[in-house]
Amino acid sequence: MITIQDIDAAAKRLQSVVHNIPLEPSTTFSGMTGAEVYLKCENQQKTGSFKVRGAYNKIMKLNEQGDLKSVIASSAGNHAQGVAFAASSIGIPATICMPRSTPIAKVSATQGYGANVVLSGSCYDDAYAKAMSIVEETGATFIHPFDDEDVIAGQGTIGLEILRDLPAVDVILVPAGGGGLLSGIAACVKQINPRIQVIGVQAEGAPAIAQSFHQDGIRASDSVHTIADGIAVKCPGTTTMEHINHFVDDMMTVSDSDIAATILLLLERTKQVVEPAGASSLAALLSGQRSFAGKKVCCVLSGGNIDVSFIHRIVEKGLVSRGRHMKFSTIMPDVPGALENFASIIASQNANIIMFQHDRVNANLDIDEAIVHVVCEVGGVEHGKALLNEIEKHGYQVLLNNN
Amino acid sequence: MITIQDIDAAAKRLQSVVHNIPLEPSTTFSGMTGAEVYLKCENQQKTGSFKVRGAYNKIMKLNEQGDLKSVIASSAGNHAQGVAFAASSIGIPATICMPRSTPIAKVSATQGYGANVVLSGSCYDDAYAKAMSIVEETGATFIHPFDDEDVIAGQGTIGLEILRDLPAVDVILVPAGGGGLLSGIAACVKQINPRIQVIGVQAEGAPAIAQSFHQDGIRASDSVHTIADGIAVKCPGTTTMEHINHFVDDMMTVSDSDIAATILLLLERTKQVVEPAGASSLAALLSGQRSFAGKKVCCVLSGGNIDVSFIHRIVEKGLVSRGRHMKFSTIMPDVPGALENFASIIASQNANIIMFQHDRVNANLDIDEAIVHVVCEVGGVEHGKALLNEIEKHGYQVLLNNN
Repeated sequence: MITIQDIDAAAKRLQSVVHNIPLEPSTTFSGMTGAEVYLKCENQQKTGSFKVRGAYNKIMKLNEQGDLKSVIASSAGNHAQGVAFAASSIGIPATICMPRSTPIAKVSATQGYGANVVLSGSCYDDAYAKAMSIVEETGATFIHPFDDEDVIAGQGTIGLEILRDLPAVDVILVPAGGGGLLSGIAACVKQINPRIQVIGVQAEGAPAIAQSFHQDGIRASDSVHTIADGIAVKCPGTTTMEHINHFVDDMMTVSDSDIAATILLLLERTKQVVEPAGASSLAALLSGQRSFAGKKVCCVLSGGNIDVSFIHRIVEKGLVSRGRHMKFSTIMPDVPGALENFASIIASQNANIIMFQHDRVNANLDIDEAIVHVVCEVGGVEHGKALLNEIEKHGYQVLLNNN
Repeated sequence: MITIQDIDAAAKRLQSVVHNIPLEPSTTFSGMTGAEVYLKCENQQKTGSFKVRGAYNKIMKLNEQGDLKSVIASSAGNHAQGVAFAASSIGIPATICMPRSTPIAKVSATQGYGANVVLSGSCYDDAYAKAMSIVEETGATFIHPFDDEDVIAGQGTIGLEILRDLPAVDVILVPAGGGGLLSGIAACVKQINPRIQVIGVQAEGAPAIAQSFHQDGIRASDSVHTIADGIAVKCPGTTTMEHINHFVDDMMTVSDSDIAATILLLLERTKQVVEPAGASSLAALLSGQRSFAGKKVCCVLSGGNIDVSFIHRIVEKGLVSRGRHMKFSTIMPDVPGALENFASIIASQNANIIMFQHDRVNANLDIDEAIVHVVCEVGGVEHGKALLNEIEKHGYQVLLNNN
């Protein structure tokens, strides 16, 4: 088990390397929950996530002990960038093994921190096997992403920073995949102030820690399915699970749709880009599964490395679910002037057509009819309703397709 | 002309009300420009923009002088929220006149700060006229968005914060529309340290200050056209123009496409949501029009209030321009199995089809041919090229539609 001394030592090593981003109080999320909500924005951390803390502490400690020649890690995510940055800032060569399917942006980011990237195989396990074979060949030191006391101690420094900014914090919500971040923060906070509740948050589709919590042995998941790739871990570590069982108060799980809605809220209200795993802690708070009213709650937003194409999908989904993009179908006479008539109704309501498709091939249609599929951009639910009313008033039957 | 005393007095009034967000050094943008780049993130400010500073200073000062009953403003943007927040935090009723076309999100945000919103007319001028008629009826005090010395002094407090964080700053780049922010920062910084260069940035499609700078009289624009709605101002103020001519070193303009690309970079690299006007200062730096290599440059990111549908478009454009979404057309035999064959080629290259349209109605097609329009999601330019090669190798002629 790691001690406060371990975490203090890690904090000293990290002092001049990582950002200590002050807790951000959130009027918006406080208003939505009745709690006093603070955000710990590790999405603003160097390399875009907390992972740099554990990696740097581990590599620096090995280096202090002497004889560290090179390091290696296998990761398609934030650990890759953390190890690459940590190694290069100490001047140690790093090799990162990634599956071939890793997005090019992540490969370049990791290379940008000075690491040698080796692409191998089709999944994480293949990349891990490749890393192990390089370890055998070269004697490079393998840096585990979570199941390592020095890595855990590095992540735990976040606990110190939270307590310094907000000593009276009541609850800390922490995303959990492999469990390194949760172990570190819980070990730190509970040994300093056992009154504070530390709750781990997992995705519903990757709940191995939640299912193993306070059970005999580790209950790994056969498969994981969630948009929160940063916490999509089949099997937590034995060291992390030991810390979690000892220090953590409780576990919660959240759905992918709650996570997606939270990412959109963070974009709009706090002007922050947070990745799905990172948003899970706030999603758990906002899900309303439990009331934290009246309490000082800190949500750890663990990272911000989200691909732009993913932001695109999240926003698209949000525009539909909030009634800003309205999808509907209707039947139109298949004759000249029909479209003009229909378009003039929509224009009169100040709505913007962004998709329009004619479909004449349908067994239920009369020969002089066509079905049209339309997506309109409107100001919101009320505007959408007014538009539909107007269309129906002109004799069109409308079938909504908002899903 | 405002003095350092005016700005100091404003800073005292604002002390417990606004966030003083520390300058954020940016390794990414420093690396891209050779300058030492710092960001002043007013997108993280209360109400999502700097506007709250000027509004609060003005309203508070009037209140100190006694006899302030209610305030009124006309705005469809950040000034609305700034006035609403400032008035409500002092306990003064506020009325905001907005054009009817104002997005519902902005209306609700303004109402959320406790203001009474009056929707009137189709454009800003109509809303302004309505505000003036309410002033006559009720005696409410009109708060100008920029052409007012107390408003300018409030915005100028940003200058004090920059100098405190980075006394050795060489250049400050400031977005400019009406000119309140630019006047305030320039008056502050140049009176304290004339060595520091203050440069105003406007959108190419709304360059009234740039065109009036150091000329006789104000050269208003007949019309403005830019995505940067926050700085789309036809005519700067006489007070602001006087300060700008006296204190500002130079003006630059940036294109909308440079602004859009900068918003995307800010989302990806700094995990920050910045509105178009707010990103214009950094866009000017990144445009490479001038070299700031070796200098300490501070870009003021003035606001973050950007509609989600706009983020959606910016990201979509970025995905296409970076080759992540590849649009192309090709001719396929119009027979059973043709699509399967084509789809298998794309699948073999690990690309994702996100749009697929058949078109059989084309005079140039043979009777047994169809033209298909395809959008594929790929990892990047290299991946896209490999995919096209593979398709062409199988005998398809490809026409790229990336625009």
